[in-house]
Amino acid sequence: MSQMEPPEQDGAFEAIVSASTLKDFVAPLKPIVDEFRLQLTDDGFEAIAADPANVAIASSTLEADAFESYHPGNGGEIGIPLTKDGGLADILGFAKADDLVHLALDTETRGLDIEFDTVEMDFALIDTGSIRAAPSIPDVDLAVDVTLTGEQYCRSIDLADMVSDHVRFVGDPDNSQWIVRAEGDTDSVDDTYGREDLVEGQVPDEHETLLSVNYLKDMAKPIPKDAEVQIRHGTELPVQWWYEIGDVEATGVLAPRRQRQ
Amino acid sequence: MSQMEPPEQDGAFEAIVSASTLKDFVAPLKPIVDEFRLQLTDDGFEAIAADPANVAIASSTLEADAFESYHPGNGGEIGIPLTKDGGLADILGFAKADDLVHLALDTETRGLDIEFDTVEMDFALIDTGSIRAAPSIPDVDLAVDVTLTGEQYCRSIDLADMVSDHVRFVGDPDNSQWIVRAEGDTDSVDDTYGREDLVEGQVPDEHETLLSVNYLKDMAKPIPKDAEVQIRHGTELPVQWWYEIGDVEATGVLAPRRQRQ
Amino acid sequence: MSQMEPPEQDGAFEAIVSASTLKDFVAPLKPIVDEFRLQLTDDGFEAIAADPANVAIASSTLEADAFESYHPGNGGEIGIPLTKDGGLADILGFAKADDLVHLALDTETRGLDIEFDTVEMDFALIDTGSIRAAPSIPDVDLAVDVTLTGEQYCRSIDLADMVSDHVRFVGDPDNSQWIVRAEGDTDSVDDTYGREDLVEGQVPDEHETLLSVNYLKDMAKPIPKDAEVQIRHGTELPVQWWYEIGDVEATGVLAPRRQRQ
Repeated sequence: MSQMEPPEQDGAFEAIVSASTLKDFVAPLKPIVDEFRLQLTDDGFEAIAADPANVAIASSTLEADAFESYHPGNGGEIGIPLTKDGGLADILGFAKADDLVHLALDTETRGLDIEFDTVEMDFALIDTGSIRAAPSIPDVDLAVDVTLTGEQYCRSIDLADMVSDHVRFVGDPDNSQWIVRAEGDTDSVDDTYGREDLVEGQVPDEHETLLSVNYLKDMAKPIPKDAEVQIRHGTELPVQWWYEIGDVEATGVLAPRRQRQ
Repeated sequence: MSQMEPPEQDGAFEAIVSASTLKDFVAPLKPIVDEFRLQLTDDGFEAIAADPANVAIASSTLEADAFESYHPGNGGEIGIPLTKDGGLADILGFAKADDLVHLALDTETRGLDIEFDTVEMDFALIDTGSIRAAPSIPDVDLAVDVTLTGEQYCRSIDLADMVSDHVRFVGDPDNSQWIVRAEGDTDSVDDTYGREDLVEGQVPDEHETLLSVNYLKDMAKPIPKDAEVQIRHGTELPVQWWYEIGDVEATGVLAPRRQRQ
Repeated sequence: MSQMEPPEQDGAFEAIVSASTLKDFVAPLKPIVDEFRLQLTDDGFEAIAADPANVAIASSTLEADAFESYHPGNGGEIGIPLTKDGGLADILGFAKADDLVHLALDTETRGLDIEFDTVEMDFALIDTGSIRAAPSIPDVDLAVDVTLTGEQYCRSIDLADMVSDHVRFVGDPDNSQWIVRAEGDTDSVDDTYGREDLVEGQVPDEHETLLSVNYLKDMAKPIPKDAEVQIRHGTELPVQWWYEIGDVEATGVLAPRRQRQ
């Protein structure tokens, strides 16, 4: 293979990172976008993406110290094809978890050189102008704040999916419970987490928000079973959740559906 | 989760049983019906179901002592959606094998409360009048009586399926053999069990019966590889077989096809 | 089952061989033909098959000493249905790896008797006249001669498949490298094997040949990950490769595509 030299300290982005860490970085984005804007900050990688309907936001952050070497160069944003044939997700599928991936921006072609093991790829980037602008994550006060395992959270969503297209996240302060509730035409299901079932939790007020099961289900796919998922919501406000996948900090946001009366 | 209290001794059905045992109970019924009549007898659960064409019957029996607790209440029959989206089979898919499932008939709504782990479901039942009446298993004298392992039986059916839509069960007393025989347009296959290949067997007379491979194949799916499958047949009479799946006694019956001359 | 007697020394083909060895023998042929001519030589089994477009050739050879017993009888060729429903590949799917399979040509019916475990099959053969004649493998001088592991070879093909329908095998004597190169509309990939990455290799001259990725991919499927794959090519000449799968010697040949200028 071509020799893997340390990134040069010039103006072009260049980095070395393990394949598994790169896979973790893109995993939260894959369920909602086909391509994303990768922000090359001094602190590492950042990406915030919204689905085409602007209902959901996913973000991933990877600190510079999770890289073998990281040189943002002039920084800025580059546009990455993710899920199409030959997109970054496909390419990473060929790397072993501990393969070191060398990324370097070719300032002439504005393409990305991707190298690992014996493989060297010229990877065409997308004009960032053609990728939907990254929304900011809404900064609102969300009173209900509970933490579940990834396994608990994913099962609750799948259970809801069995009976309905919609699900309610319900904070019940009287019983110190947090409930994932779905009501279908004939059947209904409650997955009820008392204080002893939660990793952590605060249910200070009564709050209830109605959400799309399909979005939650897609966005739950990358969550590791043993992750801790912190969920915050209010009433008729976007729900937000946070989890770690390897060295990556991931966030999800989903707008509520109008409450049915 | 809601506290799991012992069933009360009133008039409504209530029971606690492991998820794996409930899965075993419905497994023999799934290949031939979408819904079934569950009979709540003093001795436990019973279900007998026939396929829409009335060619095949499957039955499951689960004794009361296989339950953690069992209170038939007023007994009778309830109609259970099994294989549709959100049917009992789907719900049980969310329970771990050793989860205890609490079942309770809600006499007001005539629905079934299903609880396990943190989950609580209101499960709508079906009017039993709308479910095809359970036929009785024919009581006929079947001379050939052989016992195979589930693995042997399933392979014989699959082999037959490879060459034909029909298969013959053949008792050959002269050679003390029992044969699963299929003859296709170009190929034919015999799976021949001599005395030493059978778990047990009696082939007192010459008997041969022609059966649909598709039915046999579907109904063989739940049979555990290491089960002992007792098969009894005659000539142009329904074949019957018995096997155990966990604590459940399962029976299958299949009407013969008219012999082709 | 019928007793497995040693093959008689008369004029009809008869052999006993493990199921896994038979599976290995047909594996290289399956990707390109539905049926094949099996040559019963004094030295064992041989089969050479070409795909319908005459672009690819696959051959398998199994020496007589890999059989438990081998009696070619009058030798000659027999026509074997391979991948259709109930073809030889299906039948072998029912045998355990170490089942001994008894094959005997029925000279009356011109069918093949196949027996293993309790199973006995009358397997209809195909008139060899109706199977495309086996081409001979071209005997040309191919200067580039490299050996990779099956795992390396298959990954290189899959990588190429990601970006293009075509791939180049490139011998680069200046850098003692052998390259699998694919160029798509936007992306391109090189999988570059230096001397230290190859099991063995000679790249005496500059050579480059353009090949169809789909053919290479299909024909790579049976190659074991830990096999050594010897690849020889020139410029605008058919590429050839050899590997072992169990006791079977397998060869592949693929005609080049016209170079695009």
